[in-house]
Amino acid sequence: MLVVMKAHASETEVRDVCERIQKLGYRAHAIPGAQRTAIGITGNQGEVEIGTLEEMSGVAEVIRVSKPYKLVSRDVKDTNTIIRFPNSDATIGGNEIAVMAGPCGVESRDQAFAVAERVTRAGAKFFRGGAYKPRTSPYAFQGLGVQGLKILAEIRDQFGLLIVTEAVDHETLDYVEQYADIIQIGARNMQNFSLLKRAGRANKPVLLKRGMSATLEELLMAAEYIMSEGNYNVILCERGVRTFADHTRNTLDLSIVPAVQRLSHLPIIVDPSHGTGKRNKVTPLSRAAIAVGASGLIIEVHCNPDEALSDGLQSLYPEQFDQLMGEIRQIAAVLGREVPGPITGVLPNVVAGTVATTANPR
Amino acid sequence: MLVVMKAHASETEVRDVCERIQKLGYRAHAIPGAQRTAIGITGNQGEVEIGTLEEMSGVAEVIRVSKPYKLVSRDVKDTNTIIRFPNSDATIGGNEIAVMAGPCGVESRDQAFAVAERVTRAGAKFFRGGAYKPRTSPYAFQGLGVQGLKILAEIRDQFGLLIVTEAVDHETLDYVEQYADIIQIGARNMQNFSLLKRAGRANKPVLLKRGMSATLEELLMAAEYIMSEGNYNVILCERGVRTFADHTRNTLDLSIVPAVQRLSHLPIIVDPSHGTGKRNKVTPLSRAAIAVGASGLIIEVHCNPDEALSDGLQSLYPEQFDQLMGEIRQIAAVLGREVPGPITGVLPNVVAGTVATTANPR
Amino acid sequence: MLVVMKAHASETEVRDVCERIQKLGYRAHAIPGAQRTAIGITGNQGEVEIGTLEEMSGVAEVIRVSKPYKLVSRDVKDTNTIIRFPNSDATIGGNEIAVMAGPCGVESRDQAFAVAERVTRAGAKFFRGGAYKPRTSPYAFQGLGVQGLKILAEIRDQFGLLIVTEAVDHETLDYVEQYADIIQIGARNMQNFSLLKRAGRANKPVLLKRGMSATLEELLMAAEYIMSEGNYNVILCERGVRTFADHTRNTLDLSIVPAVQRLSHLPIIVDPSHGTGKRNKVTPLSRAAIAVGASGLIIEVHCNPDEALSDGLQSLYPEQFDQLMGEIRQIAAVLGREVPGPITGVLPNVVAGTVATTANPR
Amino acid sequence: MLVVMKAHASETEVRDVCERIQKLGYRAHAIPGAQRTAIGITGNQGEVEIGTLEEMSGVAEVIRVSKPYKLVSRDVKDTNTIIRFPNSDATIGGNEIAVMAGPCGVESRDQAFAVAERVTRAGAKFFRGGAYKPRTSPYAFQGLGVQGLKILAEIRDQFGLLIVTEAVDHETLDYVEQYADIIQIGARNMQNFSLLKRAGRANKPVLLKRGMSATLEELLMAAEYIMSEGNYNVILCERGVRTFADHTRNTLDLSIVPAVQRLSHLPIIVDPSHGTGKRNKVTPLSRAAIAVGASGLIIEVHCNPDEALSDGLQSLYPEQFDQLMGEIRQIAAVLGREVPGPITGVLPNVVAGTVATTANPR
Repeated sequence: MLVVMKAHASETEVRDVCERIQKLGYRAHAIPGAQRTAIGITGNQGEVEIGTLEEMSGVAEVIRVSKPYKLVSRDVKDTNTIIRFPNSDATIGGNEIAVMAGPCGVESRDQAFAVAERVTRAGAKFFRGGAYKPRTSPYAFQGLGVQGLKILAEIRDQFGLLIVTEAVDHETLDYVEQYADIIQIGARNMQNFSLLKRAGRANKPVLLKRGMSATLEELLMAAEYIMSEGNYNVILCERGVRTFADHTRNTLDLSIVPAVQRLSHLPIIVDPSHGTGKRNKVTPLSRAAIAVGASGLIIEVHCNPDEALSDGLQSLYPEQFDQLMGEIRQIAAVLGREVPGPITGVLPNVVAGTVATTANPR
Repeated sequence: MLVVMKAHASETEVRDVCERIQKLGYRAHAIPGAQRTAIGITGNQGEVEIGTLEEMSGVAEVIRVSKPYKLVSRDVKDTNTIIRFPNSDATIGGNEIAVMAGPCGVESRDQAFAVAERVTRAGAKFFRGGAYKPRTSPYAFQGLGVQGLKILAEIRDQFGLLIVTEAVDHETLDYVEQYADIIQIGARNMQNFSLLKRAGRANKPVLLKRGMSATLEELLMAAEYIMSEGNYNVILCERGVRTFADHTRNTLDLSIVPAVQRLSHLPIIVDPSHGTGKRNKVTPLSRAAIAVGASGLIIEVHCNPDEALSDGLQSLYPEQFDQLMGEIRQIAAVLGREVPGPITGVLPNVVAGTVATTANPR
Repeated sequence: MLVVMKAHASETEVRDVCERIQKLGYRAHAIPGAQRTAIGITGNQGEVEIGTLEEMSGVAEVIRVSKPYKLVSRDVKDTNTIIRFPNSDATIGGNEIAVMAGPCGVESRDQAFAVAERVTRAGAKFFRGGAYKPRTSPYAFQGLGVQGLKILAEIRDQFGLLIVTEAVDHETLDYVEQYADIIQIGARNMQNFSLLKRAGRANKPVLLKRGMSATLEELLMAAEYIMSEGNYNVILCERGVRTFADHTRNTLDLSIVPAVQRLSHLPIIVDPSHGTGKRNKVTPLSRAAIAVGASGLIIEVHCNPDEALSDGLQSLYPEQFDQLMGEIRQIAAVLGREVPGPITGVLPNVVAGTVATTANPR
Repeated sequence: MLVVMKAHASETEVRDVCERIQKLGYRAHAIPGAQRTAIGITGNQGEVEIGTLEEMSGVAEVIRVSKPYKLVSRDVKDTNTIIRFPNSDATIGGNEIAVMAGPCGVESRDQAFAVAERVTRAGAKFFRGGAYKPRTSPYAFQGLGVQGLKILAEIRDQFGLLIVTEAVDHETLDYVEQYADIIQIGARNMQNFSLLKRAGRANKPVLLKRGMSATLEELLMAAEYIMSEGNYNVILCERGVRTFADHTRNTLDLSIVPAVQRLSHLPIIVDPSHGTGKRNKVTPLSRAAIAVGASGLIIEVHCNPDEALSDGLQSLYPEQFDQLMGEIRQIAAVLGREVPGPITGVLPNVVAGTVATTANPR
């Protein structure tokens, strides 16, 4: 914390401020400059509550210096966090690009399976799909609920895909924790601190989406909430922020990727589907996300966007997704990173018909 | 919904779009203009899911026309909603300005009672104070919880003030519903749809704060969530939005007051404390909020801001609050509205010492 | 300037940074804290060019402390600037509220005179009207040019109103300086530094509108440009900023009024017409601007908005303006300020027919 | 233009609006829907001036449909504009990526030549460098003026680089037109319409930077200003927009690249130096800009950023620029595009010593 005095602040004013700081339990360090004096504050644990310091006579401004985050910071852990999963070779935060693909919402078993087969073949190792949909209108499709989660679990068994799906409150988080591999916290809940704390007690990794007007610091502090409860497996996600610009639904802020990587050891992925809201911009922005150095992508794919119950406008066709995978594979290589290759021929599990016979513990 | 065709779209392209619209179950109305053709879509119940319409050959743009809100709208109810309370003459949305005042957080019985006495004397009929505080940092003061709610309930008994306090999840909403008179939903939870639905089933009015980057439509749709569950007593609250401007913590958007009043019958109040984040701007912006026509104010007052555990920087001193009440009383009169007068002399309940003897039904 | 070191920065890293600072010609002040060291920089004249300081080993962040403005600042001149005019009792920045009213653009002598008579009667002492219109489209009405300026000069002679009109480049500024009483620099030119310098050499006061995304500091620095050339008569003007909010054309940021008043001695007025872009919001926001403490208003009034060539949507009818003047008169009184009264009966100059006989040097 | 009526608008109200539209000289097309009636307006040349339509009884909203731009639009010219230069094989808008590199400001002949040699060797065909610098502070370095332009012209002769430099007003544009190959209009002047018209009469291509809060439509309309005066060689440039985000100086909006390409035939390049304001983010965002499909880059390079008189913080070192060129060369190939290769060995002109002997008219 730094107190900047006015240009003509008197010695008495400077002394009074120093005394007030000491009375608050901190140490004051006056730094006289050519034009004005600044006073550094040290000795604080956590945030300084500056009370009325800013209104004392002679004070021009109070500037916060320390950052409030701890566990997310490279100050605490310098090596990159790599998230691993039991029974899968997929990782997030390592050398391999994590590609999460699937429909906005799970609408039916057939719809979800059709997409799952296509994205598996294209090389994706993660399947996204909402069972609980936070919709702006109470009258819009709200998701299939537990039935949707069961379809997702079947997809894991059938295709070996890891499941990413959103929880919207404590109750749905209980279910998602049970059925999915990654618990998604949506942008609208990024500062739902009660939900963050619950996610921090979950035994699955958490995908935390940036709020629509969240600063970098707020995003990191939201991750800190989760980590402070003991869950260190947090994946950050840029999904566009709200600005005046009206040519896309949101403004995708790719610069946050290197900014996060400088400050934090956590992986950060990009969601170009919500980040743009327009199908024809998903592919170019996906390429850009890989080029900027993101750890992965989360992309909406739908076999029949025309009939999607939500977000049809921003879902890729499977053929577009195939092509996208090819392009990002080459771009990732420029950065020395890898995108998993396509699978040709018969998909193992499909042949074995494991779904029917698997003793599914869930 | 309106489909705007490109300048040189062919007749075939126009016809194809019309057919697609009809296939989706709607009616198409082609409107040929000098430069281009537009096609109106009617026949929809609720929102049109336009699928890939926007990408058809010859289409320049698809423009949404209908508004998705119903119950909040003056289309459904044209007369202003006035919120009333049992055992109190206070109203919100009527001719009297509703003034809610109190500390950011309830820190102790003494602190809260001291503020309560001052704001009662100044004329406020509502007491605000957080028992559950949504804080950006998990390491910051999070509120006294149920103990805080009990202190608030005592304040109601002692001073006759109506209690406004925030619920942050289902569990805390159960408690707030039990102890308070108005359930506050904070800006960070404005699109926590699960919580909104729960508030919609509560038997107390809901104070809904605008999210940090919420559009007018999103704010109204959040209220629609609450109303769609049967609770029609919703008070909207402007508390500043996030912009590039850095001279205040948020940018108070007073123009939303007349904008809401044009579209909706719900009352809207203003929070100049969070809206500016700086004590020296609370009084001028409070005056402005009354001048613009708001139904009320929610203001932070603290007897000793220097020692506040949260938001000390933006809390008024009681003397500043007294003066503010005097000023807005005169401004309200210009608009033909009233601010309750100050209470001089002995406060009735204080004499009777009712706290100890009241059989509290809660 | 303050250099914040990383939590685990070594003593060598701290020393290296201090040495670099000294090599750049400044003094370094290390302030060791519990968690990290901060290093203050003093000894600079003007801005510190920090070069690569931010990328030195161990550095977390560099924070600018000093403000770059001088002449606009209360550090240099603490008493409020009051702007006066020859042959008029009108002032800006003093106790009287300065009301500037008139059409968006001067469209014809008849149109302008009709409005001028109405606003004179209502109490306005300043007449606004564009002769040069900066329009988003090159195909839209661009103003009458010098012919418009001559009409404005006639209005001054006829009604005694002081003329405010916009200059858009060096050439038009020459003309505006000759014909008008206040030279307006529009929002789009707020950082047209070449034009600001020219305005700084003009012998008339300058009305400087805030740019659509200008911070408080940028607004003050734009005024500094004008003052640095010798013209100290600058009036700032808030006219709405660009945000995500879509219920008004711009978001009127009234909090900048007290923010400017805290830092600068210059007067600041408010433009609720451009600030909202909607007629039905001009009156409530005008009341709010006076309540927040602005030094004046600049408002669009048109006798026949239906036929206006520009901005018809946001122009008040004369009767609405009359009513507005009545309301702000009462609100100004609450703050101990005055709005000039209406003029009933015959307007002196109109009787004398001075226009025809005045030897007008212009 | 579309007029949306309120849900319960009467037939009379609908008829009145239709009559008003016809009275304004347009045609009205009523489209009755299940919930409300919409009325299309056709028959307009250029923009409809809707006057008070929005305030007529029964009207809910008026929505603009037509786009105001013409010459910039693919409606008028569908094939991409490719900009060519005499005596150079460089192009902008074609298959080759246009790389413009150089210091923020020309500070001295030695500084500029040193950078020019490095960027030539790395493969750049365009040299950027400011002779006239628009600076926020009147007290900061404002550029070398004509002397700087002469240095730039020497650089063209010596290295064969095409010169891009900014004009800030009519006077400096005259000089820039004489000395440079591309006239840059800076972000702060994007809506300096007087300067745009002057640039439209210049005989050199214009690089038009997006304003800090310009919408896509405003950017295109600024280009329209230039083209409407006869200069069709316009290059658009994304350079970051102003948002609440504070981890970069501006928020680089890469989604505008495909958005422009969909609507306009003009090339669009990206400025990651101003777009981020931080050296460590220039390289990743440059890669992203190429991956998203931009036609080129404009990048700040300085041999000694520590001693730069402006923007040292965001300038790349020459070695960083070399590496960047290598990376974007590979990414461009993924999109089937080319970045010129590095030049090894002796630079031809340097040997010939043409500078001294060229009879340069400039």
